[in-house]
Amino acid sequence: MEDLSKRAAVNLKTLGEKKPLIHNITNYVVMNYTANALLAMGASPVMAHAPNEVEEMVAFAGALVLNIGTLTDDWVAAMIKAGKKASELNTPIVLDPVGSGATTLRTNSAKRIINETNISVLRGNASEILSLSNVDSRTKGVDSIHTVDEASDTAKALARELKTTLAITGPTDLVTDGDRVIKIENGHPLMACVTGTGCTATAAIGAFLAVDEDTVGATATALAFFGLAGERAGRQASAPGSFMIALLDALYTITPEELEAESKIVES
Amino acid sequence: MEDLSKRAAVNLKTLGEKKPLIHNITNYVVMNYTANALLAMGASPVMAHAPNEVEEMVAFAGALVLNIGTLTDDWVAAMIKAGKKASELNTPIVLDPVGSGATTLRTNSAKRIINETNISVLRGNASEILSLSNVDSRTKGVDSIHTVDEASDTAKALARELKTTLAITGPTDLVTDGDRVIKIENGHPLMACVTGTGCTATAAIGAFLAVDEDTVGATATALAFFGLAGERAGRQASAPGSFMIALLDALYTITPEELEAESKIVES
Amino acid sequence: MEDLSKRAAVNLKTLGEKKPLIHNITNYVVMNYTANALLAMGASPVMAHAPNEVEEMVAFAGALVLNIGTLTDDWVAAMIKAGKKASELNTPIVLDPVGSGATTLRTNSAKRIINETNISVLRGNASEILSLSNVDSRTKGVDSIHTVDEASDTAKALARELKTTLAITGPTDLVTDGDRVIKIENGHPLMACVTGTGCTATAAIGAFLAVDEDTVGATATALAFFGLAGERAGRQASAPGSFMIALLDALYTITPEELEAESKIVES
Repeated sequence: MEDLSKRAAVNLKTLGEKKPLIHNITNYVVMNYTANALLAMGASPVMAHAPNEVEEMVAFAGALVLNIGTLTDDWVAAMIKAGKKASELNTPIVLDPVGSGATTLRTNSAKRIINETNISVLRGNASEILSLSNVDSRTKGVDSIHTVDEASDTAKALARELKTTLAITGPTDLVTDGDRVIKIENGHPLMACVTGTGCTATAAIGAFLAVDEDTVGATATALAFFGLAGERAGRQASAPGSFMIALLDALYTITPEELEAESKIVES
Repeated sequence: MEDLSKRAAVNLKTLGEKKPLIHNITNYVVMNYTANALLAMGASPVMAHAPNEVEEMVAFAGALVLNIGTLTDDWVAAMIKAGKKASELNTPIVLDPVGSGATTLRTNSAKRIINETNISVLRGNASEILSLSNVDSRTKGVDSIHTVDEASDTAKALARELKTTLAITGPTDLVTDGDRVIKIENGHPLMACVTGTGCTATAAIGAFLAVDEDTVGATATALAFFGLAGERAGRQASAPGSFMIALLDALYTITPEELEAESKIVES
Repeated sequence: MEDLSKRAAVNLKTLGEKKPLIHNITNYVVMNYTANALLAMGASPVMAHAPNEVEEMVAFAGALVLNIGTLTDDWVAAMIKAGKKASELNTPIVLDPVGSGATTLRTNSAKRIINETNISVLRGNASEILSLSNVDSRTKGVDSIHTVDEASDTAKALARELKTTLAITGPTDLVTDGDRVIKIENGHPLMACVTGTGCTATAAIGAFLAVDEDTVGATATALAFFGLAGERAGRQASAPGSFMIALLDALYTITPEELEAESKIVES
């Protein structure tokens, strides 16, 4: 079995050296936090959504991050335009289907982006990810999953159906491409009390995809890194305001060696 | 006279237990801070403004928060669409008429939202609120009010005219539905040095409206809670950057018991 | 030679007394941080971009801040509309051409704004500023500049070509109107690790332009003030999350006397 902690350290080191441009088309709520998080971890964020700019911009990028958190039809159109260009250039794309399953617009928009572009990774919580299945039996939804094994099997089947890598985050994160299954145990409960930590985990995956061609490895190590930053922040802060600032600090200060030593990544 | 401190404690406790969804259509400047504030106090924020989504989204919500801070005509149209649906469902709506009175667009947009939807609470500073009166004599404006009694009388008359509850915030907050008049003395001067504290007070009112059917009681207790968080932050921080972070922390850490003990709510 | 440290102190004092309204049409990423920075330094920020509002709003403002960081065509149109009105009223305008040179849309939009409005100050990094020259030989770009003297000469020529004051920021900031050349040495390396510090420097220039009619003096003193806030923050914080909060605090706490004593402004 591969040593994913070692891969995590290499990825973080490479990120700081190469400082890849990460093109984000994301929601209004998290733009500032996501940009600061990407800068703190060593990447170069850019936010650009104009239809007459996104193709030119994405051509410079090491990865494209799409996020439908405050979507409208014209933003989704820009995401698809950027995503098609990225697909053509083999630039990795990570999609965060915020709120998919909650409204028709969100579910349909996420499905359109998946169908019309070549998504490398889809990151969401369990209910968002499950909402994207086209298989009828899946509509029983997230409440039907009672054990970790059931979650793994369902996720593997869905990854195969959608032909992409899934990152289902929660107290334990699960990454699968339908073949490999990896669990990440890093993280802290206060992450759920700060808006946009999920969106920022997605951006971190984008940054790691820009320096690691192994999609599953990049995704799992990004989540371990981001989760470890949460753990560090949780040692400094006990309420969400100071926690969100300490988390940005941790993304900047964690060294590759520390990440290697403290990653909790398990491949089953 | 009702014990509003007790009501404040019950509302805060219920908020943490029920975690109601609060649907916000608000301005770009404060989206992140407002979302973090709502999360910290125990609510579940969602930001959604797409015209083909707002009706579906608001149907899940315990309250709708409308804020015209960075308005354009299409955002106002989305607010009205969401507001009509909320009115139909008897979901409480709180409106923050940011900058009403400063430009024609803002005054007219706020009036349109008031006329076309069923606003439960209107929260602003004195000049914003007074700008919404259609009575000619009111155009003499905020400078004509010299005493606390004059302010109360003017506010009561305006609440009756607009058939809504008013929350006029400042060093002392005033809440009235045209009948009851409540004053809240919690707060801290540094709140005026952080952008979006008014907008966030409005969102807090939305959260309390979702757990308390008494509009005046919900509004007054929300302002006491938010003001107390400011007081706590002011004990930790003496400049606006660290103050705004300490305020988020306080929204998370204040207990119902502490709120009951430290609320400064006076019904006259 | 004028004592620019003294001018810096006077400007900061006047800012706190007059609290001028600064009208910003800026990007989504930095709106919150910029607004908080302007409040902390004593100005009154407003963000307004609706085409049917910007002319009315800018008429109240002491300065107009334009920033194309997350531009689309309709936002650029609003910037030009506001800029034309400001030009008519002799209200100073500062433009931040974020990403000019990176994409065609950004370069062309920045040039359009420069051509159609009366820009007082253009603030960017060296590559952004150089991209705005129409002189062919300049297309050799930023890599062709090897010494501080070459930078000064190029900047002076470009300021004359564009008939505006340039503020080229970096480890050393350079301000020139084509005649005077001023260098500012205040600042801290962590400023480059926080998103929107450049944009916020631009907003600070806007605030100082609102209280000082000498464009070059206002620009240089604003950059010294902002850089000094970075130095103060760097003494308190060693990672970008806590640094960005400490920077806001410093904008609030630096006194005119301290600014006079610690400014590093050199006119050559």
